[in-house]
Amino acid sequence: MATENTVNSGEKFVTKKYPFSTQPIPRLYYRDPKAEHLIQSGQPVILTGSNLVGSAYHWDMDYLCSNLGCGQYTVYTSSSGKFKYYDEKKMPENKDFKPPTSHTDMTFQEFAAKLKQERNNEKERMYLQQPLNDTVGKWIVMDFTNFNWEWANQQQKTNRWGPLTSNLLLVGMEGVITPAHYDEQENLFAQIQGYKRFLLFDPDQFECLYPYPIYHPHDRQSQVDFDNPDFEKFPKFADLKGYEGIVGPKDVLYIPMYWWHQVESLSGHGETISITFWYKAAQTMKVVYPLTAGQKVAIMRNIEKMIAEALNDKSEMSPFMSNMVLGRYT
Amino acid sequence: MATENTVNSGEKFVTKKYPFSTQPIPRLYYRDPKAEHLIQSGQPVILTGSNLVGSAYHWDMDYLCSNLGCGQYTVYTSSSGKFKYYDEKKMPENKDFKPPTSHTDMTFQEFAAKLKQERNNEKERMYLQQPLNDTVGKWIVMDFTNFNWEWANQQQKTNRWGPLTSNLLLVGMEGVITPAHYDEQENLFAQIQGYKRFLLFDPDQFECLYPYPIYHPHDRQSQVDFDNPDFEKFPKFADLKGYEGIVGPKDVLYIPMYWWHQVESLSGHGETISITFWYKAAQTMKVVYPLTAGQKVAIMRNIEKMIAEALNDKSEMSPFMSNMVLGRYT
Ligand SMILES: [Zn+2]
Ligand SMILES: [Zn+2]
Repeated sequence: MATENTVNSGEKFVTKKYPFSTQPIPRLYYRDPKAEHLIQSGQPVILTGSNLVGSAYHWDMDYLCSNLGCGQYTVYTSSSGKFKYYDEKKMPENKDFKPPTSHTDMTFQEFAAKLKQERNNEKERMYLQQPLNDTVGKWIVMDFTNFNWEWANQQQKTNRWGPLTSNLLLVGMEGVITPAHYDEQENLFAQIQGYKRFLLFDPDQFECLYPYPIYHPHDRQSQVDFDNPDFEKFPKFADLKGYEGIVGPKDVLYIPMYWWHQVESLSGHGETISITFWYKAAQTMKVVYPLTAGQKVAIMRNIEKMIAEALNDKSEMSPFMSNMVLGRYT
Repeated sequence: MATENTVNSGEKFVTKKYPFSTQPIPRLYYRDPKAEHLIQSGQPVILTGSNLVGSAYHWDMDYLCSNLGCGQYTVYTSSSGKFKYYDEKKMPENKDFKPPTSHTDMTFQEFAAKLKQERNNEKERMYLQQPLNDTVGKWIVMDFTNFNWEWANQQQKTNRWGPLTSNLLLVGMEGVITPAHYDEQENLFAQIQGYKRFLLFDPDQFECLYPYPIYHPHDRQSQVDFDNPDFEKFPKFADLKGYEGIVGPKDVLYIPMYWWHQVESLSGHGETISITFWYKAAQTMKVVYPLTAGQKVAIMRNIEKMIAEALNDKSEMSPFMSNMVLGRYT
């Protein structure tokens, strides 16, 4: 299940092998017109040289411990190493749902101490995921202020993205995996420490990835277990085609809205430290036919939401959907 | 394929046999509280004694010939004997669609003459279907005025139906069949001459009847050929359960909105002459959970319309629907 992979830098990484083919995510200098064109056309690209978080390149566990302040940080724990997101707001309506991870709040110092202690514990992986807020110390605030906002704001303007909604600080143990999902925002993903492997899939691969029903806590996540795909239930997973790339310190990956991504912190290079820049969708989504795969996903989500609201009973969703479609549109 | 069937009156009819079971449609005196309760709860019932079209009981081919005037009437022709409705407005977007019947306009006198001529022609059946309008002669107007409007209006009021939209005059050759479909209006179906067999299905049988996609000219019609069902494509047709009854002169059948109906003019009793009273849905459809099967059909139709409009390309409907549902809600 393991194979070798070479990143442009020449470093070697051992990565899991999956039963689908991938092509490399383009890796380009951030001022390269080809890079700018990829972003404008909603295609992923790994950007070098942007210094988007250049003022944070010195962040490591010790620096963060000393400077993050004593705010509470959300730390997820998983025995499988996989951190499949779940929406707790959707749990009351899905009584049978068992969260695959647990989470607790702690100070960054507590997290760092636990991390040292658990570093060699294969049975418990930890992943800190916390929006940066105003509890951070003054040096972190200064680093944050010195991010390359000029370039970020210019991207936001050029691509007509909506407002920046949050910057998430991600600190993951080696080997942690965020399984395939898509987000409803544009994302500039900036890497600071360690290496992350990204598997990306175009929104037009929706049919191969079988996201959970919209009312499910795992909404937006693929139902397919990449390590053990159920081809009976998910036959089109066999047709999946993806993109792949390794993102290391100073790299920035543009993850377009509705693009699927699986993220794996690679082993042998220490904790991964990353910061996301999430932007709302372009304010006026031009409706030009034919629709893009992303626009169809947006329509589908609205339709599913309307049906869930009209039926007002989650157990009626599946029969309703089946009756509407089977033998009629299949 | 033929079996005997006895109507309450004691007369015997030869009717086609189908691979599903039916129970009789209740047949009750129109003032029977049980009948009124059935109508109020949206259940079909054959009403006797209402005299809804009592002033038209003397209508026959000769009387109509002499008194209908010289307006144009729409006459459908079918070589199969089946008159599956199609919406011509939906034909431009469905280039491959071939109408299963043709229609021409003619005076009632021309229709009557053609009918005499073709009566023994098994290869060409004719079915006149025309809303009553103001081109009819004064005696027909008088008969129309003398319908039992008092009772009809009282039903409309009691059941909060919307306005009366039309009275369709139906004149069918023996043996004509209107295949299973549902309408989006309440219907009081009044029989004047001849006998019609009705097969009715509750809206909750939707999944067994596989209506065409909403944008298809055969929208609201079942895709299943009752004489030769394709159980591979339409497996749940095997689970279909229905109601059945024969409607003769003076009978009125209440067909609730969204109830499926197949109508067969029986042989050996001359042309069938009928008048429909179509009413719009109750103005305020109460939304009380759990939803009724009819309400779910209404939601489904709205959803399908919205998707068709958003995609703006009929060829995208099937993949969109399949991707939304298969492996996700199935
Ligand atoms: Zn994500
Ligand atoms: Zn009808």
